[in-house]
Amino acid sequence: MEDVFIAGAYVTPFGKFADKSLRMLAADAAAGALADAGCGPDEVDMVFFANAAEGLLTGQESIRGQVALDGTGLLGKPVVNCENACASGSTAAHLAIMAVRSGSADVALALGAEKLTNPDRARTFSVFKSGWDVERYGGPDDSSDQSAFMSVYAQMTRDYMARTDATVEDFAAISVKSHDNGALNPNAQYRDPVTIEEVLASRVIDDPLRMLMCSPIGDGAAAVVVANARGLQRLNAEPVRVLAAALRSGSRDAAESPVVVAARIAYEQAGVGPGDLDVIEVHDAAAPAELMVTEELGLVGHGEGPALFRSGETRIGGRIPINPGGGLLSRGHPIGATGCAQLTELADQLRGRCGARQVADAEIALAENGGGWLGGEGPAVATITILARNGA
Amino acid sequence: MEDVFIAGAYVTPFGKFADKSLRMLAADAAAGALADAGCGPDEVDMVFFANAAEGLLTGQESIRGQVALDGTGLLGKPVVNCENACASGSTAAHLAIMAVRSGSADVALALGAEKLTNPDRARTFSVFKSGWDVERYGGPDDSSDQSAFMSVYAQMTRDYMARTDATVEDFAAISVKSHDNGALNPNAQYRDPVTIEEVLASRVIDDPLRMLMCSPIGDGAAAVVVANARGLQRLNAEPVRVLAAALRSGSRDAAESPVVVAARIAYEQAGVGPGDLDVIEVHDAAAPAELMVTEELGLVGHGEGPALFRSGETRIGGRIPINPGGGLLSRGHPIGATGCAQLTELADQLRGRCGARQVADAEIALAENGGGWLGGEGPAVATITILARNGA
Repeated sequence: MEDVFIAGAYVTPFGKFADKSLRMLAADAAAGALADAGCGPDEVDMVFFANAAEGLLTGQESIRGQVALDGTGLLGKPVVNCENACASGSTAAHLAIMAVRSGSADVALALGAEKLTNPDRARTFSVFKSGWDVERYGGPDDSSDQSAFMSVYAQMTRDYMARTDATVEDFAAISVKSHDNGALNPNAQYRDPVTIEEVLASRVIDDPLRMLMCSPIGDGAAAVVVANARGLQRLNAEPVRVLAAALRSGSRDAAESPVVVAARIAYEQAGVGPGDLDVIEVHDAAAPAELMVTEELGLVGHGEGPALFRSGETRIGGRIPINPGGGLLSRGHPIGATGCAQLTELADQLRGRCGARQVADAEIALAENGGGWLGGEGPAVATITILARNGA
Repeated sequence: MEDVFIAGAYVTPFGKFADKSLRMLAADAAAGALADAGCGPDEVDMVFFANAAEGLLTGQESIRGQVALDGTGLLGKPVVNCENACASGSTAAHLAIMAVRSGSADVALALGAEKLTNPDRARTFSVFKSGWDVERYGGPDDSSDQSAFMSVYAQMTRDYMARTDATVEDFAAISVKSHDNGALNPNAQYRDPVTIEEVLASRVIDDPLRMLMCSPIGDGAAAVVVANARGLQRLNAEPVRVLAAALRSGSRDAAESPVVVAARIAYEQAGVGPGDLDVIEVHDAAAPAELMVTEELGLVGHGEGPALFRSGETRIGGRIPINPGGGLLSRGHPIGATGCAQLTELADQLRGRCGARQVADAEIALAENGGGWLGGEGPAVATITILARNGA
């Protein structure tokens, strides 16, 4: 298979932007990623557009990418709209990687964009009841608990606490770490540090989860330009290498999380193991997920997530920094954008561009993105992407 | 690039099925396509799921494929949800072809499913206002004209009539041909012949389009198993070869239809021209589209579509039969399913399995699938797939 590179990466600021439409966010991300790759839209052979909520929020159920990208110079090309709940952005990136590997494209753009804030707040909250089986668990039209989906994380967290020594104070401290990192990221939605006491005192969403342990509602977009060696010749890029890209679904009766399965596949593809990683982005839609994922990625053994976190090794400056950009908790989580935002953070870390939050000498990086829930172990979909500094 | 094959293909009956859910339709199509390929779900490496309307109709905005396929044995694998309006099904097929070409998968399943009928008829009709830019033209929530999207076809038709000698009687005769073909297809939604007089007397949707010149509302699913040579060894299939697969977007200011662009690319990929085709499936969401597409595919010159049709050569038994399975008009048009249904019809034609509607000695076949509208020439997305009888 051909070598594949991320040749350009860009994330817009994340936040609540009453004055920015989905198409403005998408156009910003496209322009930023293309500028970073040193090319214009004409050099792009294929576009993968990720969005999870626009059908519910604006009624733009179909051709979301074509509508959002009209006027950017990217139409006329193949455009594929793809969706995998909170892992939509990394799914777009995985398709771009596949397209470039197959030679169907030499340069492909993966772009995730989400405009979650809406004048009708109930509409925004309804989105979170579309990431599971709505016939089984209730859908966006049901007027039941707005925090429904977070109850899945709350239950996972209670289960995790029952089998480990994790405490609610650990989860608060994870939120503190994420906010500390977000404070160093000019594009993060939350850029003010918080204290453990503030996190613990924030509103209980579903015990033990507090508001400040949950990713916020926000808007944003992110994009990556993916290229093979032939494509790179058309660009003026500082690329990073894609060592592995794995995508797996869960199921209702899954005994093993798709995060574990995808990680196993990705390590094998990449020829690296958890001990080789220098920096990691994980899908911390709720703070405790960070602990669970450290175990699922094999960074530590079963039940050892809390000890790893408490050791301080997952902070910037530690052995294996996790979510240096603030993670979903602080950078924010505009659903379809998150997967590409994670890859942008890692590409920038590998290229030494992260300023105050730079992880020293980062050579190998891993992103874990998860989405949806079917009832079995883990999310409905998980992706693992492993990147390496070019030449490393 | 590797040789790629359609190794299995299946379409469910299309129609209004109050007692069939989306997941039942999807499971039927998956089982049928796998049986045709001579394998079980374990042999599938990757799944591409196409659906265009479920978010609007049931609120299942996210992870539609994972929800619909839970229990089929197909989860645990990579599942990607994709959408491109009425071309969603062929988009899934094109991604499957790309996956198999890249070696990311040796066997991939593309499955399109749609459950358009809904207890709330207004909801069903609202779907058709999501295939364009809803901010510009009005969205599903607007209570304006239910036939809004068909007005795009009506305007294209009036423009076409202004530049050719096409008449409303031609369009009625196309509908008669489609119904004649549908009468020979046990899976078609409409299996009763109609007369020109009946078509002309049916309700005017938007002049000159009559009800019987427009594709109906219906439910159904279709799937194709795509494999490379390595994948075929795991199957027990009677494959057809994929000679070309092209996908292109339109744009608001497109001067050339993406159908024309995609056809040009596909002919080049396949090394064949319009004169080499033995059977064609076109996207006749409205009857006049069949004439326009014959010109866009280069079967005849500009303005010569009506003459080709009147010659009778596009009937079964003619030189180049179009829509032998009944097309969207008579087989039906459960949006996300149509692209895979077209490929199934052609795969079956190339394998000589079509009984009374068999096109004699069909060796090379082309499918054209279009979707959405952005305001420029042609649809928002067009796909062209060219298949060949194996060994031909």
